[in-house]
Formats: sequence, structure tokens, C-alpha cells
Amino acid sequence: MSDEKKLTTRAQDFSAWYNEVVLRAELADYSPVRGCMVIRPDGYGIWERMQRALDDMFKATGHRNAYFPLFIPQSFLNREAEHVEGFAPETAVVTHGGGKELEEPLVVRPTSETIIYAMFAKWVHSYRDLPLLINQWANVVRWEMRTRLFLRTLEFLWQEGHTAHATHDEAEEEARRMLGVYRTFMEDWMAMPVVTGRKTDAERFAGALRTYSCEAMMQDNKALQAGTSHNLGQNFARVFELTFQTESGGTDFAWNTSWGVSTRLVGGLVMTHGDDKGLRVPPRLAPTEAVVVPIWRSDEERARVLAAADALRTALAARVRVHIDARDTLKPGAKYYEWELRGVPVRVELGPRDLDRGQAVLVRRDTGAKQPVSLDTVTMELEHLLATVQNDMLRAARERREQHSRRGNITYAQFRELMDGEGAFVYAGWCGDGACEAAIKDETKATIRVLPDEEFRSAEAPATCLKCGRPSTSEALWAKAY
Amino acid sequence: MSDEKKLTTRAQDFSAWYNEVVLRAELADYSPVRGCMVIRPDGYGIWERMQRALDDMFKATGHRNAYFPLFIPQSFLNREAEHVEGFAPETAVVTHGGGKELEEPLVVRPTSETIIYAMFAKWVHSYRDLPLLINQWANVVRWEMRTRLFLRTLEFLWQEGHTAHATHDEAEEEARRMLGVYRTFMEDWMAMPVVTGRKTDAERFAGALRTYSCEAMMQDNKALQAGTSHNLGQNFARVFELTFQTESGGTDFAWNTSWGVSTRLVGGLVMTHGDDKGLRVPPRLAPTEAVVVPIWRSDEERARVLAAADALRTALAARVRVHIDARDTLKPGAKYYEWELRGVPVRVELGPRDLDRGQAVLVRRDTGAKQPVSLDTVTMELEHLLATVQNDMLRAARERREQHSRRGNITYAQFRELMDGEGAFVYAGWCGDGACEAAIKDETKATIRVLPDEEFRSAEAPATCLKCGRPSTSEALWAKAY
Repeated sequence: MSDEKKLTTRAQDFSAWYNEVVLRAELADYSPVRGCMVIRPDGYGIWERMQRALDDMFKATGHRNAYFPLFIPQSFLNREAEHVEGFAPETAVVTHGGGKELEEPLVVRPTSETIIYAMFAKWVHSYRDLPLLINQWANVVRWEMRTRLFLRTLEFLWQEGHTAHATHDEAEEEARRMLGVYRTFMEDWMAMPVVTGRKTDAERFAGALRTYSCEAMMQDNKALQAGTSHNLGQNFARVFELTFQTESGGTDFAWNTSWGVSTRLVGGLVMTHGDDKGLRVPPRLAPTEAVVVPIWRSDEERARVLAAADALRTALAARVRVHIDARDTLKPGAKYYEWELRGVPVRVELGPRDLDRGQAVLVRRDTGAKQPVSLDTVTMELEHLLATVQNDMLRAARERREQHSRRGNITYAQFRELMDGEGAFVYAGWCGDGACEAAIKDETKATIRVLPDEEFRSAEAPATCLKCGRPSTSEALWAKAY
Repeated sequence: MSDEKKLTTRAQDFSAWYNEVVLRAELADYSPVRGCMVIRPDGYGIWERMQRALDDMFKATGHRNAYFPLFIPQSFLNREAEHVEGFAPETAVVTHGGGKELEEPLVVRPTSETIIYAMFAKWVHSYRDLPLLINQWANVVRWEMRTRLFLRTLEFLWQEGHTAHATHDEAEEEARRMLGVYRTFMEDWMAMPVVTGRKTDAERFAGALRTYSCEAMMQDNKALQAGTSHNLGQNFARVFELTFQTESGGTDFAWNTSWGVSTRLVGGLVMTHGDDKGLRVPPRLAPTEAVVVPIWRSDEERARVLAAADALRTALAARVRVHIDARDTLKPGAKYYEWELRGVPVRVELGPRDLDRGQAVLVRRDTGAKQPVSLDTVTMELEHLLATVQNDMLRAARERREQHSRRGNITYAQFRELMDGEGAFVYAGWCGDGACEAAIKDETKATIRVLPDEEFRSAEAPATCLKCGRPSTSEALWAKAY
């Protein structure tokens, strides 16, 4: 299992710390294929819980799952000009099948707009067929040169929602609705607060009219683009002839949206909540919410404690995802170390003295706080504690973000210093000129993460552009990003 | 939605009937990529329910999910001699990535033994790490020349279990256990009876020691290989150096198993249960178990019936997956037709006269039987009826199979006639010689589906080989197959 060598600390080297946590908590491993990862059971278990929660929310908003081919004809990708420019350079291409060279190469999907809207065009005839609300859980491939476990891999798992609507406004409403679903999921399930808003044209999805994003702050004060939602306008409908008969008898192109989140979220969870002891998983996403660790010193104690611990596990299992660590080969301290590394939200200690007192001790992974509770009420207390941990983790992450967010007057020199140093979310004015945006990116590597939604904007709108000093037309959130 | 043209009947052309049902019930559609299919929401909904049921059973038997890369280095596939011979001719090969030719081509996984056991070799050190019980839900690609929706497609979705054990016997037990899990699923969920047994060497999985299979009879009396489970012996462990320290301090190669079922099962469901009106879905796998169809003739009736139907839907929804078809654009008869085509197990009719009597009418999709039930007890009655339908569908399928199974003395001439004609499951003797097996396949296209497990064997063991007349060493189940 885990070796006993101490983790690199976050302060020493955040990037090394991240890799060590992912590997030693056995979330993922490197694979023999460059840039591809293996998602191990403990990592996949978190992803499965993410999938279940998101899938329930998608279905509750009227979406149905379907599955489209992995392979896309090269010619399909080429049809939408911006789209091919954005994705063609990073595709994997199948040139041979069944021992023969193919007449037309097939692209391994980097995203599925083209193949999906080609199918929608077959299915949609009338306004009565709209809206068409589809989601797909799938693997996609983007030929990235620099990869990081979960954050950027050649192949990753994701969901991509694809919808068709009769009007611009309905599509816009859908794109915003799904952004809201993502935000709710990230905050309520991942305990990861996000800033929502619109991307600038430079950061827009290739082929979209407008792109919206959820941006989270990691513990190195860099932003993680955690989920995006696009109003695609009629761009794809035009090239794939996705038309419909309108209620008044005319013909129009449909309006599309697409939206996605990926296994990158597992990386976001690690970088939001992990500490120098390892992973911390928010209870709602934890495959194991609590681990019972029986404590004994003699064989006699062992028999007594194990019997009680097993009864306790059975009682808890009715309401909580619980594991018992009854291994003979490790001392309690070594078990604590391991379960802390793996991020299980609550440890339940049970020793002979606890039994004498009719209690168990609940230990929070997030704060380390210990709390003895009566065995009569332990299930209820544990459930209550798990809810508290979930809330506290969100609150702590939000406080940390606010501590590292900067609003109000800031000179460009100060901004550069901040970006060269500890980093931050900086809310500042922007003249709306892509040249200023590009220059800042060049000079500081910071980008406009979003033009934030109303509730995230500063009480007093910034007056001037961070870069050129001309009047600001939009408040922008600047940060370095993954 | 569906057009009103009548389906080809099964008797006219079973193959055409199958394609029409799949397309018109909107389970799947052809895609622009040769041999790849699109699984539409109604088909994917069945697959999702299959996944959920199987996944629960895998977890209950101690397995955990993980995810391994889509791409496998060509050299990995080449390491196990039989395996590469079996799979290399049907691979899709990625030769270019990120605009450049790759140094080593990557194969799109046709199955994942090689990449998974290479990873197991990194993770397993000691007998304490065994058994390692992993499952993966994934897409795989096999470059088939002749494809059929669900039954044989270039890309398909499946699960592949992969395990490692300390001894041959544990691996054997695991391979048999998972075959049993498959059988339980196919019978209890799909209402599709299967014959289990061992494959002959000629039909063994490429690289396995022994292959076990579940074979189901379709309505054209052909066999569908519905799921297989392999004892891989130490073949893959040897080539990927998957070794472990034994309890006694020595070193040994691990013993592996793998087992899989795929979206082919959806095709099996159609061909087991469909009739000339369309699909029939067993209730436990039906995304919609019951559809409420309100019946009205006047606007006044409409208001009254719709209010009652909606209340009924709400009441039923607490216990049953239910849909209400309140469309104004279709008459009840057209709705019946459509829901029969789509295979919803029970229709709930509710008209003004039913309301006067305080009743609804339950109509079974499998038999067409109608049954008025009191609105006071309708939920309980419907639940009960769904359980009855589930059981009756299994019983009907089993009876049909037995009617078309042939045991006891049969001459080879009679066998050929049967295989050229209506087909059957024929239990007959086999001398154990691959030459007889090959000759029969050549002459009749029938193969040994399995050497059946004890409970499926004839009361009196066949004495002589179906082909050569020499003494039989094993009873064999012969049939033509998909």
C-alpha cells in the first residue's frame, strides 16, 4: 500500500505534492502509453460518485443519455471552420483498420459536436421534436504535449451534453441552466466554490457563440477551469443542415448548446482540499465516508474489540458508507496514517477503554478534531458530523479563496508582482480590447478566466483597464490557470 | 416518431424484422462511420439499467471499477502469441497524433488483457495483494467486416472484469462464479434463459486456458453467445511478469481471469422477446415500466380524464417507472400502437367510463391480456402484474427454447436437414476430435456452442459422435450462431 516516506509539503512544491498525493492515495497511476493515465479503484470510486450525482441532476432537468461513435470522419471535423482550427492540431488519427489503410482517416473524438449534430439532423424535423436534450458519458482524446494526472491527459473521461432548441433564447437559457447545475454540483458535492461568468472571445470554445465557465481556485492560487457550457448558436446547425419546420410553417436552423465536465474534477478536488497529510475527500463524494479502526494490545482485548467493532460497522452501514480496518499486520497509528493519506472524512476509533465507557471516538479528517460519542447514538452523530464536515469544507475553501482574491485599485506593476509571486484571483477593469488581454497573457501568463456574473462582481465597478488605463467596459477575473 | 407502416414479420424475414424493430423503436441508428452505431436514448436506457444491475452484482462479489487507457502499444498486443493471432487482424490503428507520425503505432483496444496485466504487474507484490478483483466499463473496437446493430459493431460498449489470484483453483472458482453472475442476470433481469458450459479449444478466447459461455436461443433458433468468462491460467502473467511472493516465501506467476458482456445483450433482448408488433422489454430492465394513456372524446371529458390520469401517474410514480402520454395530436389507438412498438411492459388505460367505475385497465404487452383494477389498489396491482410479466417472459422464453431443443438419437443427415431448415439447439455426442467439429462447421455452419454444464446435459449421455460415429467423450450443444 502506501510507503511511510513523508509527502512533499504544499509549501515546498505544490506540483510535486499533487503528484505524490494522487499516486500514493492510489487515485491514479502512469500508464505505459505516453500521456494516458490509469484511474485506480479509489480514484474511479470518486468519479463514479461524481457521475451519479451529475447524472441525476441532468435527468432531473430533462436530459437523456445516448452514445455516439468514438470515430469521426476527418471531413466532419473540417466542416466548421473555427472548430477544426481549434481541434485538428491535437487529434489522434486512425489510418488503418482490419489490416488495411482506410480511404478516409478517422479522428478519435476530441469532442463530439460534429458527429452528434449530424445525427440530430436525421432526427429533428419539426419544432415538435425540440428541444432535444441529450447527454453522453464517454472517453475523448486530445493529443496534449504536457500532461498531468487528471488535469491534462491524452485520453480523459467526461460527459458532454448536446441540445437543440427552436430559438436563441431557449438555447441561451439552457447554456446558463447547465452552468448553474455545474456550480451546484461543485459547491454542494465537491465543496469547491466557483466563480461563474462568460469567457472572452479569445477563450471561447472553438465554434461557439458564447462560452460560460466555472472557475475554481486551487491551493496554489491558480484557477482551474472546472466546467464549461456553450451557446453554439446556429454554427453547427448550418454546417450539418440541422433544420426544422417552425410552428408557423417556415424552416429554420436549430440552436445548439454543449456543456461538459471531466475527470479533471478529481484533480480539482485534490488541489482544493488536500493537505500535507494527503487527500481530504468531501463526504458526499467519498466512496468510504468513515473507517472504523479497532484498537487492542492483547489477544484478549482483540477478540472483545473486534466483535464490538464489527457490530458497530454493521450498525453504521445502514446509513453510512463504512469500512472496518481489522488488519493484524498494522498498528493503529499506521492505519490512521494510511486513512488520512487516503482522505476518508471520519475515523471511528474503538478501543477497550471506549468500550468500558460505551463510546467510540469520531475523528475528523478535515480538522483533526476528536469527539467521543455514545455507542447508543453513534450512527446519528456520525451522519450529523459528516454533514458538518461537508459544509465546513466548502466554507474553508471559500474563505481561502476570498483571502487570495484581490479587488479594487491595483497597478499593473503590482499585478505582475502578484502573478510572479503567490498568485491570486484579481478582479480588475478591462477595456474590452483583445490586444490588452494578449499582452497581459504574454507578460504574466495570467488570463481572463471569466467576465464574472453579477454576484461575483465588485461592489464598485473598476473604472479603468488594468493594462492600458483606458475606461473599463467589463470587470474581468484575472488569474494564472491550469 | 414511428411511422405507421407495418413491421416485416419474424416469419417473413427475421433479420429484416430485427433491424426494423431496433430502428423504429429508436433503440439505435446507423452512423456516418461504417460499422459504428448510435445508441439512442431508448436503447441506452436499457443498457443503463443492465449496467446498474450488473455493477451491483460485481460489487457484491467484491469487485471494484477502474479505468485503463483506450490505446495499447502495438508491442503489448504482440507479446502473447495466441492473443495477437486472435486480435491483431481486427484492430484499428492510430498512426498519427498531434499532427505527427508516431514512433510506435497504438492499437485501439479490442480487449484490455495486455494493458491491464501490465499494470497489475506494477501493483501486485505479495500474496497479500491477491486476489485483485477489477472491472472496467469501456468502449472497445474490433474491425468487423459484416456488422449488425448491437450484435456486431466496430465499436461496442462492454464491461471487462480482470482478476489475479494466487492459485489455479481460485482463478477457476472466480471464472465459474462470474459465469454464474451472468446467468443470474440474464435469467432474472433479461428473462433470457441460457445454457452454460465450456467452450471447445477451437472456440476458446485467444490466450485463455478455458473459456466458459452463456448461450441463449434467439427466436430464429440460432444461438447468441451472450457472455463469456475465461480462466487465463498464467499465460498473461508470464508475458507481463505478473509475479508475487507466495506465503511460503517463493515467487510465482499469478493466475488471471477475464469476463465480459456487451451492448450485444440489447440485441439479445430484442431477439428473445420481440414480436410482430415490435419490442417487448422485461419490466426489470424497462426504463418505462408502464405508460398511462388517458382516453377522451370531448373537451369536457379531456379535462376530467387528464386530471385523473395525472393524479394516477403521480400515485404510481412512487413505486413504478411510469410515463403519461397526454399528447393531443394522437388518438388512443395510435398511442397504443406506438407504445407496443416501443415495448413498454404494461399500458394503463383510463377513460371516462373507467373513472365512473373507479377503475383503470391494465394491458400486458407480453400477452395482450386486459385487466380492470380498482383505482384504490392500482399501484399494488400494477407492481404485482409487472412481477408476473417478468416471470412469464422468462417461462415463455424457456418453453420456446425447449421446444426447439433436440436431444437423443439424431443422424448426421437429420442434423444437416435441421440446420439447413428451422435450426435448433442439438445436444449430441462428440468424439472430442477437432476434425469432426471443423467438418460439421464447414458443412452446416453449426458450431459447438458449449460442452454443457451438468444440469443441461441429457439424462442419458449420447453414446457416439454426431459426425464420425466413434464413442462420444463429451455431450456437445450444437447450433448455428450469431
